[in-house]
Amino acid sequence: MNVPERLLLGPGPSPISGRVMQAMAAPVLSHLDPAMMAILDDLRQRLGSVFGAADGSFSFAVSGTGTSGMETAVANVTEPGRRALVVVTGYFGDRLAQMFERYGASVSRVDGEWGKACDPQRVADALAANGADIVAVVHGETSTGVVNPVEQIAAAARQHGALTVVDAVTTLGGVPLDVGRWGVDVCYSCSQKGLGAPSGMAPISFSARALERRVTCRSFYFDLGLLRDYWVDRKYHHTIAAPLVYALSEALQVVQEEGLQARWERHRRHHLALLAGLGKLGLSLLPPAGERLWTLNAVRVPVGVQEPLVRRRLLDEFGIEVGAGLGPLAGQIWRVGLMGSGSTSSNVLLFLAALDDILHS
Amino acid sequence: MNVPERLLLGPGPSPISGRVMQAMAAPVLSHLDPAMMAILDDLRQRLGSVFGAADGSFSFAVSGTGTSGMETAVANVTEPGRRALVVVTGYFGDRLAQMFERYGASVSRVDGEWGKACDPQRVADALAANGADIVAVVHGETSTGVVNPVEQIAAAARQHGALTVVDAVTTLGGVPLDVGRWGVDVCYSCSQKGLGAPSGMAPISFSARALERRVTCRSFYFDLGLLRDYWVDRKYHHTIAAPLVYALSEALQVVQEEGLQARWERHRRHHLALLAGLGKLGLSLLPPAGERLWTLNAVRVPVGVQEPLVRRRLLDEFGIEVGAGLGPLAGQIWRVGLMGSGSTSSNVLLFLAALDDILHS
Repeated sequence: MNVPERLLLGPGPSPISGRVMQAMAAPVLSHLDPAMMAILDDLRQRLGSVFGAADGSFSFAVSGTGTSGMETAVANVTEPGRRALVVVTGYFGDRLAQMFERYGASVSRVDGEWGKACDPQRVADALAANGADIVAVVHGETSTGVVNPVEQIAAAARQHGALTVVDAVTTLGGVPLDVGRWGVDVCYSCSQKGLGAPSGMAPISFSARALERRVTCRSFYFDLGLLRDYWVDRKYHHTIAAPLVYALSEALQVVQEEGLQARWERHRRHHLALLAGLGKLGLSLLPPAGERLWTLNAVRVPVGVQEPLVRRRLLDEFGIEVGAGLGPLAGQIWRVGLMGSGSTSSNVLLFLAALDDILHS
Repeated sequence: MNVPERLLLGPGPSPISGRVMQAMAAPVLSHLDPAMMAILDDLRQRLGSVFGAADGSFSFAVSGTGTSGMETAVANVTEPGRRALVVVTGYFGDRLAQMFERYGASVSRVDGEWGKACDPQRVADALAANGADIVAVVHGETSTGVVNPVEQIAAAARQHGALTVVDAVTTLGGVPLDVGRWGVDVCYSCSQKGLGAPSGMAPISFSARALERRVTCRSFYFDLGLLRDYWVDRKYHHTIAAPLVYALSEALQVVQEEGLQARWERHRRHHLALLAGLGKLGLSLLPPAGERLWTLNAVRVPVGVQEPLVRRRLLDEFGIEVGAGLGPLAGQIWRVGLMGSGSTSSNVLLFLAALDDILHS
C-alpha cells in the first residue's frame, strides 16, 4: 500500500489527531462485550450532548458514512403518502430530496440558488399553501459552503405540525447547532468532519416526537427499532466496528475537553482568517456574508485560472487536499475545509502561502 | 475508555494480527484521492480473487457490516414480483428471508432443522414444483455451525435459470468457496471473520448475469449503480473509511501470502484439533460429521451445566470470548470461532484447558 501524507483541507475527511488515531489501536472488543456496551452507553450520552438533544431523544451512531445517516433519518419517518417539503440549495439538498422519493414520500421542493441560503419565509409560505408532514433541510451545504437558517425553518415547520429533518453532516462540532432548543426532530451527521474522527459512523438523533411518528422501516440495516434494540437492549443486530467506535468516542472526549462553544469559536476564527487572507490574494467566497459555513469555504476560482491544475499542484507539490466543485459549480470553486483538528491558524497560513505560490509563480 | 484485552473466540469479530492493526495507522486519505483510488482498484482485484469470481464479475466492498452486504445483495436483485426461494436452516437464513420480504419479493422457504445442513434435493424439488427467480442460501450458518452444500444448490438453481445469492459471512477466507466455478451470482461476506480485518466493510461480488438482471434499487446507500460509479468511475457517492480500507487491504495481502488453499487447510486442521479435544472432555458438536463449519464450532452444552456462567467465567477469568446460542439454541450451545489469525493450535489448547478448568473445578 502506498499511502502518502496529506493535509486534509477538503470537504472531508478532516485531519485525525494523534490521540484519535491512537484510540483505534485499542484491542478489538466484540459488539456484545460488556465493556463495549459500556462504551456505547457513554457514546450515546456524548452524542446527545453534542447534538444538544432534548430529554426523551434517542442519539446513537449508524454503522456507515454520513449518507447512511441520511438514509436512516429518511427511512424511519417516511412512507408512501407522507408529504416531505425539502429545501434544495445544493448537491446535498438534492440528494436528500432523492432519498425521500426513494422511500415513497410525496416530495415538494423549495429550490434556491446554489451559493445562497434559503429564505425561511419561502418555507413558511410553502407550508401555509400546502402543508407538509416533514420539512427537511441541509444545515451546512457542503457543495456551496452555505449555512441554512435551520432554527427559523424548524420553527416554521413546528408551527405547521411537521417533523423537521436536518442534515448536520458539515456542521456538527464546528458550527452552532442545538437540536433540542431549535425543535429539530431528526438530525444526522458524520464522524469525519467537525468531530475529527475517521469516516464510517453516522451520529444521529431522533426526538421523542420523531420516535412516536416513526414508520415501519423498509430497510433492515437502517431499521430504527432494530438499531435501538442493539444500542439500548444489547440485542444483536450487526457487528459494530470497534476501531471506529473507539475513534469516535475519543474524538467526542476531545470535543468535551475543548468545550463546544470554544470549538465553534475556533472554527469561526480560522474561517475569518482564511477569508481575510483570500481577500489579500484578490480572492472571494461564493456565499454572501452572513451565510458562510465556518467549516467549509467555497473559494471562487479566478477568471483565467485552470481549476483542476491548481488543485493538482496543491496535492502534488504541497500534499494539500482541497475539494472540487460539484454539479453546476464544477470548475467554479475550490472547497476548502477547516474542520475538526484541521481548523488551525497554521493550516490557514500554509494553505494561503501555497495557493499564492501556485497562482503567482 | 476501558478496553480490556480479549481473546476473540466467538462468532466474530476474530483476532486482528499486528500487521493488520498497524495498517490502520497509515495516514487518512480522502475517498477521492488518487492514491486511495489505486488502493481500491487493488482491493477490487484481491476481492475478486478471494471470492474466485469469474470474468465480468464486479467485486468490491460495501461500507458497512456483513448485514449491509446482505441488504446490498438483496436490494439490487429484488423487486416486487420476483420470486425468491430461501433456504432457512438457522438465524441468518431467516434474516435473509426477512430481507427479501422487505424488498418486496414473493418468498418461499425451504426450512430445515437448526443444526443440520440443507439437502440440496429439497431445493431441486421446490424449484421443479414452483420455479424461482432467485435461490438464496447461507453458506456457513453462524447460528448453528453448519456448512450448507452451496455448490449443489447453485447447480440446481442454474438449471432452473434462477440467480443464486449466497451469504459467505462466516466462510470467506476460512472455508472452501469458489463462486465462479460454482456459478454463484451474488456473494457477500464481512471483513471481521475469516479475513481477519476489523468489521465495517462487506466484501461482495456480482456475476455478469447478476449485473444484467439487477433492478432499480430502492436504497440510495446500497445502490449498485452508484457504488459502481464510485469504485470504478471515481464519482463521489460516500466517504469511504480509510482505516477500514487499509486494514482490509492488508488482511487480503496476508491471505495471498498464506495462499487460500493453505488458509482453508489451516482452518480445517484447528477445527479438527478442537473437535478431538472436546471429545476428550466428553463434549460434542451440534452438527453431524461432514456438515460442520471449520470457522465456527457449535459446542453442545452438557446437561446440568449453566451455559451463561461458563461463558462469563471464560471472559472474566481468562479473557476468552465465545458466543451464546441464538433463538431456539439459546442455552443449548456455545459458539466457538477459530477464524482468521485466531485459528491457531495455541488458541485451541488454551480454550480447551480453560473450559476443562471451569467445567471440572
